[in-house]
Amino acid sequence: MNLHAIYHRQKSNYCYAYKKDEIHIRIRAAKGDLSKVVLVYGDKYELHKKTKELEMKLACSDKDFDYFTAIVNPPNNRLSYYFVLESNNKKYFYTEWGVLNEVLEDEIHLHFFNYPYAHEIDIHKVPEWVKDSIFYQIFPERFNNGDKSIDPEGVEEWGGVPQRHNYFGGDLKGIMEKLIYLEELGVNAIYFTPIFEANTNHKYDTTDYMKIDPHFGDKEILKELVKEAHKRGIKVILDAVFNHCGYLFTPFQDVVKRGEDSPYYNWFHINKWPLEKNPPSYEAFAFEYHMPKLNTQNPEVKEYILNVAKYWIEEADIDGWRLDVANEVDHEFWREFRKVVKEAKADAYIVGEIWHNSLPWLMGDQFDSTMNYPFTGACMQYFAYNNANHKEFTELINNTMMRYTRQVNEVMFNMVDSHDTSRFLNKCGGDIRKLRLAVAFTLTYVGTPCIYYGTEIGMDGGEDPDCRRTMEWDRSKWNIELFDFFKALIQLRKEYKALRRGSFEWIETNNDVIGYIREMEEERILVLMNNNEAEKNISFIINGESYFDLLENKEIKLDSSEAEINLGSYEFKMFSL
Amino acid sequence: MNLHAIYHRQKSNYCYAYKKDEIHIRIRAAKGDLSKVVLVYGDKYELHKKTKELEMKLACSDKDFDYFTAIVNPPNNRLSYYFVLESNNKKYFYTEWGVLNEVLEDEIHLHFFNYPYAHEIDIHKVPEWVKDSIFYQIFPERFNNGDKSIDPEGVEEWGGVPQRHNYFGGDLKGIMEKLIYLEELGVNAIYFTPIFEANTNHKYDTTDYMKIDPHFGDKEILKELVKEAHKRGIKVILDAVFNHCGYLFTPFQDVVKRGEDSPYYNWFHINKWPLEKNPPSYEAFAFEYHMPKLNTQNPEVKEYILNVAKYWIEEADIDGWRLDVANEVDHEFWREFRKVVKEAKADAYIVGEIWHNSLPWLMGDQFDSTMNYPFTGACMQYFAYNNANHKEFTELINNTMMRYTRQVNEVMFNMVDSHDTSRFLNKCGGDIRKLRLAVAFTLTYVGTPCIYYGTEIGMDGGEDPDCRRTMEWDRSKWNIELFDFFKALIQLRKEYKALRRGSFEWIETNNDVIGYIREMEEERILVLMNNNEAEKNISFIINGESYFDLLENKEIKLDSSEAEINLGSYEFKMFSL
Repeated sequence: MNLHAIYHRQKSNYCYAYKKDEIHIRIRAAKGDLSKVVLVYGDKYELHKKTKELEMKLACSDKDFDYFTAIVNPPNNRLSYYFVLESNNKKYFYTEWGVLNEVLEDEIHLHFFNYPYAHEIDIHKVPEWVKDSIFYQIFPERFNNGDKSIDPEGVEEWGGVPQRHNYFGGDLKGIMEKLIYLEELGVNAIYFTPIFEANTNHKYDTTDYMKIDPHFGDKEILKELVKEAHKRGIKVILDAVFNHCGYLFTPFQDVVKRGEDSPYYNWFHINKWPLEKNPPSYEAFAFEYHMPKLNTQNPEVKEYILNVAKYWIEEADIDGWRLDVANEVDHEFWREFRKVVKEAKADAYIVGEIWHNSLPWLMGDQFDSTMNYPFTGACMQYFAYNNANHKEFTELINNTMMRYTRQVNEVMFNMVDSHDTSRFLNKCGGDIRKLRLAVAFTLTYVGTPCIYYGTEIGMDGGEDPDCRRTMEWDRSKWNIELFDFFKALIQLRKEYKALRRGSFEWIETNNDVIGYIREMEEERILVLMNNNEAEKNISFIINGESYFDLLENKEIKLDSSEAEINLGSYEFKMFSL
Repeated sequence: MNLHAIYHRQKSNYCYAYKKDEIHIRIRAAKGDLSKVVLVYGDKYELHKKTKELEMKLACSDKDFDYFTAIVNPPNNRLSYYFVLESNNKKYFYTEWGVLNEVLEDEIHLHFFNYPYAHEIDIHKVPEWVKDSIFYQIFPERFNNGDKSIDPEGVEEWGGVPQRHNYFGGDLKGIMEKLIYLEELGVNAIYFTPIFEANTNHKYDTTDYMKIDPHFGDKEILKELVKEAHKRGIKVILDAVFNHCGYLFTPFQDVVKRGEDSPYYNWFHINKWPLEKNPPSYEAFAFEYHMPKLNTQNPEVKEYILNVAKYWIEEADIDGWRLDVANEVDHEFWREFRKVVKEAKADAYIVGEIWHNSLPWLMGDQFDSTMNYPFTGACMQYFAYNNANHKEFTELINNTMMRYTRQVNEVMFNMVDSHDTSRFLNKCGGDIRKLRLAVAFTLTYVGTPCIYYGTEIGMDGGEDPDCRRTMEWDRSKWNIELFDFFKALIQLRKEYKALRRGSFEWIETNNDVIGYIREMEEERILVLMNNNEAEKNISFIINGESYFDLLENKEIKLDSSEAEINLGSYEFKMFSL
C-alpha cells in the first residue's frame, strides 16, 4: 500500500456534517491502490461497547488519487471512526495516529478520528433556490440602453468597439425592458456586475455605495427592476466591491486633502501622505491608484459596509451578493458579513470571487460558494483547447469536486466565461460546436450554472475589454441554433430535478467519449458527449425496453438491453432512462 | 519522486501568517525523497515581472514524511508561490494544480498557490506571558484544607483514599496559604480545575456559575487569592465548564419540573419530558445524567455564559480560561467567546481540552492552544513504556509539532499527566528516573509546561479517582531529590530565554540517546537524555574552548572541539554552549 498517499482530515472537506444527522466522510488513496475501505465508527463514549462497520464507495478519481466516500448517521450527534484499508490482500488500520497494524483497545479513544459533535449552527446551509437557479451575468453598461437621457458624455454607438474607457449607454431601464428576453431564454437569476456610482464603465471603483450610478438609473428603478424580476421568478444578486473603493470615494478624497487630520485616515492603508498615485503610496487593488484598498478591519469601515450590504437587501429586496476580490478581504469581516446578510434575508446567496482553492471560505462561516474558475479551466483544457483527453477531463472535474463539501458543490457558481475572461467561443477559435459541448456540460452538471450575457447567441470577444462588447439585439445576427440549444437545455434543467439536484456519476466509456448519469428519485438521465471531429459509437447497457431522447424528443425502442448509440462530430445527446 | 506524498494547503498549518510581514510555509514529502525544495514566490500582481527564489529547509521528519519549511516576507502583503522539488536529479513543479512538468506563463495566476492578503486581524495572536509561564495544575478539593469551617459533610481525613464521591476538604484559603510553596517551586501560573458551586468533588457539574463553591470559599477569597498570586507574579486561569452544567443547575431544575412550560426548555437538548435519568432522555456529557448538555447555540444561553466568562475576568481579574470538553461545543460559540474574553482582557489565555488534532480550533478565531495530550502520549510511549525508541520518539514529537502553526506550538499546554490520566510515575511503574526524564523534556521543550500538583514530590496514583489523592505536605514523605530537580529545571527555564522561546532542533545522535538544541540570541543550550539502563557515551562537536554544565553548575574545558559526554543510566544533562 502507498501509505504516503492516504489522506483524511476531520472538520474539512474530508469530514463534515451535511445535515445534523448526516456526516459525510471521504478518504484519499493512491489511484488503484486500495481494493476495499471499511469505516469503523461509533459514539465516542461507547467505543468499547459497540462500533459499526460500513464499506466505503469508490466515488471518483483524479489524476493521482482515488476518493472513497461514505455517509454516516452519527450516534447521539457524536462520531468517532477509523478506516480499515485493504491493499494486496493485506489490511491496514488508518487512524489519527497514522497507519497502524492494530487499533489498541487501551488507546481506542486516542486512535479514532473524531467529529466531536454535530451542531446545527455550525452546519453549512446554502440557499435552496440557488440549487434550482440558472444565472445570467449582465455587465450593465453593455446590455441595453433604455434611457438615452442619462447616457454618459461621449457615449459611443451601440455595437462599437469596447475600449478600456469608453461608454455605450447601457442602463437599468434597458435591462428592465429585456426581462422578457430573459424569460424567453429561461434563466431565473441575474448577477449584475457593479451598479453603484463609479467613474469607469465597469464600476469597480465605487464612489458612492448608497447610490445607483446616475448613468445606470436610480434607486427607484433598481427597486422596480428587482420587483419585476421577482414577478417573473427571477432572483437578483449584486456585486459587492468591498475590497477597495474608487479614488473619488468621499472618505478617500478627504484623506487626499487632509491626510492624518482626516477622520477617514484609518479607513484605508496609507503608507505616505501627501498621497502619490504612481505607484500608489497607499494599498490599492493590483497597484491601481484609482482603487484604494479599504481597511475592512477598522470597525467604522466594517459598520459602514455591513450597512451597505443590509441596506440594498432591505431597500431593493436583492437576493444576495457576489463578492469582488473576496480573498483579499479579512475573514473576520466576511464572518460578520454572513451574519448581517443572512439576518437581513435568510436565504440570501453569498458567492465569492476566488480563482483558487477556496475551502478556507467555504466551511459554513463565510460564503456559500465561489465563482468556479477551476471548473472553467477544466472546460477550457478539454472543450476549447483539446489539451486534455476525456479521461483527463473527468479527472480534472473530479478534482474540483473533491475540493469542497457536497453542499458547496451544489451551489458552486459554474461558468465557462465572464467579464474577466475572454469569451469561451473565442477560446474555441470560433468553433460553435465546442462551445455547445462546454455549455451543455455546464447546464447538466452539479452546481449553479451562469451564462455570461451574449454567450447564448454566439457573441465573440477576446480578453477584457473585448469580452465586454454591447449585447446584440438584432436577431438576424444571432446564432439562432445556438440560442435554441441554450433554451432547450435550460428548459430541460428546469424540468428535471435530477439535473439540478441529482447524484452525478461518470459512466465507463471507451472511444474517447464522456458520459454521466444524473439521478434523483424516479429520474435517471444519461448525458453523452463526443468532443471529437470523428464520429463515435458507444454501447451502453440499459435496464428496460426503451429510452427517451430528450433533445430529439422521441422514444427509442430497444431490441436488446445494450443500446448502440452513434455520436456525430462534437455531438451531445441526452436520454431519460 | 513519490508525488502522492507531497502535501501543502494554503491557510492552514502549511501556510499561515506568523506576523503581518512573515508568512510561514511548509511542504510535506515522503521521507528521504527530496534532495532540494525551492520556493518561488512573488506578488500576485507582479508575477510576470518578478519572482524570487528561496531554498526551503528540511525542518524535521516523522515516521513517514519530511517537512520542509521557509519564512517569507510577502511583498505588499500578498503572496503567490509554488515549489520546485528535486528528486533523483529531476525537477518537478508543485502548484495548486498538482505536480506539473512546467509552470505555464499563460496559467501563471492559476498555477501559483496563494496567501491572498495578510490582515493583522486574521493573524493568530497568542498571549506573550504564556510563552514565559510554567503552569501548575491544582485540583482544589485535594490541595490544601485552609478552612475547616467550610468542609463538606462527611469529610475524610487528609491522606485517605480518594473515591469517586468522597471529600477531603481542600479549599481556596488552603491554596492561598500555599502560594509561598508555589513560589518556592518556582511556577508562575496556576490552572484550577472548577471552583464554582457543584455537587461533586471535581465540580464539573456546575450548579451556579456565578458563585464559588461554598466548600471552597467565596468570591472574596478568590479575589484575594488572585491578587496575592499576581503579587507573586503568578497568573491564574479557571476551568470553563460550558459544554454541560450540573443536574441541579437552576434552569435545568426548572425544566425537570415544568417541561416545555419552562422558559429554559431550549437551554438544553431535551428529547423527552418528563425527564428520565438512565439513560438520560436529554443530551448529556458522556451519557452522565448529572451533566446535562447546554444548548450553546441558543442566544440566551450564549449571553448567559459569555457573561460568566467576562464576569470572572472583570470581577476576580483571572488571566484566562481552560475549556472543558471544548470540542463538543459549537465553533460559533467559541468565536464569540474569544471576542468577549479578549475584549475583557487582551492577553487572556484560552486553552481548550481537546485530546485530538485541534487545528480547526487553532487558526486564530477560537483558542490559543489545547491541552497537548498527543505530546503526553509520545512521552508515555518513550519514557514510561519504552514502546518507542529514541528515533521513534523524535518522530512522534515532530508529528505533534507539524500539526500546528508556530504561534500555537509556542503556547501549547504540555503536560505529562493531569486529573484525567493516571500519574506519569504510575505509568513508569514507580521508576522516578523515567519520570525525571519526561519532566526534563517537558520543561526544556517548546510550549508551555504544566505540572500536575504533587508530581514534583513524587506522588503516585492510578486512573481517576486514584490520581486525585490529597497533596502531601509532610516533607519527610517527599522525594526531595525529585523536588529539587523540578526546582532546578524551573529556575533554568526562567533564566534562559532560549528554553522558553528559542528555536528547537534535534541533534544527530547515535547510541539511542536524544539530544536537542534550544537557541535564541546569545543563548545556546544543549540537552541530552539517556532513556536506557545502560550507560551511554556520546560525542558532540562544540565550537569553543569550553562549555557549561547547567545542572552541575560547572564549566568544562575542552581539549579538542569534540566533547565526549558520558550519560549514566537514565541520566539527563544540559549544557550552555
